[in-house]
Amino acid sequence: MQTEDSRKRVEVCFSPYLFPLYKDEFDIIVVIDVLRATSAICAAFHNGVKELIPVSTIDEAKEYQKKGYLVGAERQGKIVEGFDFGNSPYSYMKEQVKDQTVVLSTTNGTRSINIAKEAGQVVIGSLSNLDVLKYWLEKQNKNVLCLCSGWQNKFNLEDTICAGAIMDYLLSTGQYTSIEDSSIAAKYLFLSAKDNILGYLKASSHRRRLLNLNLSEDIKFCLTPNNAPVIPILEGDKLVALNETVLK
Amino acid sequence: MQTEDSRKRVEVCFSPYLFPLYKDEFDIIVVIDVLRATSAICAAFHNGVKELIPVSTIDEAKEYQKKGYLVGAERQGKIVEGFDFGNSPYSYMKEQVKDQTVVLSTTNGTRSINIAKEAGQVVIGSLSNLDVLKYWLEKQNKNVLCLCSGWQNKFNLEDTICAGAIMDYLLSTGQYTSIEDSSIAAKYLFLSAKDNILGYLKASSHRRRLLNLNLSEDIKFCLTPNNAPVIPILEGDKLVALNETVLK
Repeated sequence: MQTEDSRKRVEVCFSPYLFPLYKDEFDIIVVIDVLRATSAICAAFHNGVKELIPVSTIDEAKEYQKKGYLVGAERQGKIVEGFDFGNSPYSYMKEQVKDQTVVLSTTNGTRSINIAKEAGQVVIGSLSNLDVLKYWLEKQNKNVLCLCSGWQNKFNLEDTICAGAIMDYLLSTGQYTSIEDSSIAAKYLFLSAKDNILGYLKASSHRRRLLNLNLSEDIKFCLTPNNAPVIPILEGDKLVALNETVLK
Repeated sequence: MQTEDSRKRVEVCFSPYLFPLYKDEFDIIVVIDVLRATSAICAAFHNGVKELIPVSTIDEAKEYQKKGYLVGAERQGKIVEGFDFGNSPYSYMKEQVKDQTVVLSTTNGTRSINIAKEAGQVVIGSLSNLDVLKYWLEKQNKNVLCLCSGWQNKFNLEDTICAGAIMDYLLSTGQYTSIEDSSIAAKYLFLSAKDNILGYLKASSHRRRLLNLNLSEDIKFCLTPNNAPVIPILEGDKLVALNETVLK
């Protein structure tokens, strides 16, 4: 798909629930779940995890556990009983996971990955890998959809702000355009938030929900741009990190 | 439904497509389609239209036409062939419609009305009736959902900004709260846009689409706050204007 003026498109879809309205038109789908799945995935690869297998259901996660894999499973912000990890980025920064294959199932993020993969090349986006990702996307020069994982199928601010940051950069190159109001809103929200993302999210329900779980260290990690500069990309059913030479 | 602190809730749903995720929790649904259905409806009642019957399909509209009603029908921004009006507010400010019952079917707006009516008391919101509506909502002290009609089931900026204006006022009274990020984003977008709504929407796809149809006079009308200070409310299958004494 090309727009009239031959620029590529970059757009933002606010939640997996809305994905059917967008999915047919894009080459690359950037899956975003800032709090916390995609931030944790970036942290994992930055810490040397070899492969990461995203699965949608707890049953699938259990199957992998039986086979001896390290398995993370999170629901409603907590580690599911019997699993090794939840979706805290710090879980995936331990020596134990280095060079390993890890399996992960989360409430919103891994579900997004699995619905996106039918529609285009899936890459993982978060604030943690923002700059390397946006430069890589620019070089691809393909139609890009930022798919926010949201919260229980609804819009959330942190994913939208991250998507807005990608939008803002790609539009600034002159090589991309966008036609959806959701994309324009994401860019506006990023521009309002960028100087103080944590402060901006103080009003966010999701953040309040996470604070109840005493996750403020996680939140600080997830809202710090560029602390895990890797590009996790889906190959078959596994996420791997792009070879660093590709990033140059 | 009450929140923990007994304040009432006011929330924003970005499009009818997302309505199933929100609909069970509210007493009053404010249906918003700024460009142009709900602005036209406010203009109609401000101009003395007696009743307005919103219908979802062109077939229903045709049935009413056969019975001798004045009927407006719009699809993709244009008057449907064979009907008296589309959704230009100026169509409903003519002498011809005064004291009449008018039937209306539009792409997004009347569909929203018809899906909202199962969930709560439907009232019509636009920038044209913003202040009287927000003061009336404050007096009701009930849980309020602002349902944006969007564009082809997707988010649009102008409806969201209007919803954000209602949010901003009701939250400022101290008697309302909100827990959804969509509501917080709507408020932020309104606060960024409020000093120059037309300028803000220059980047909007929907506005570009309407400009192609030479509708700039309509756009100016629809984006001018408080130029049709009435509260259209659904009674049975008909919209009527609340008696003005109720507004005091």
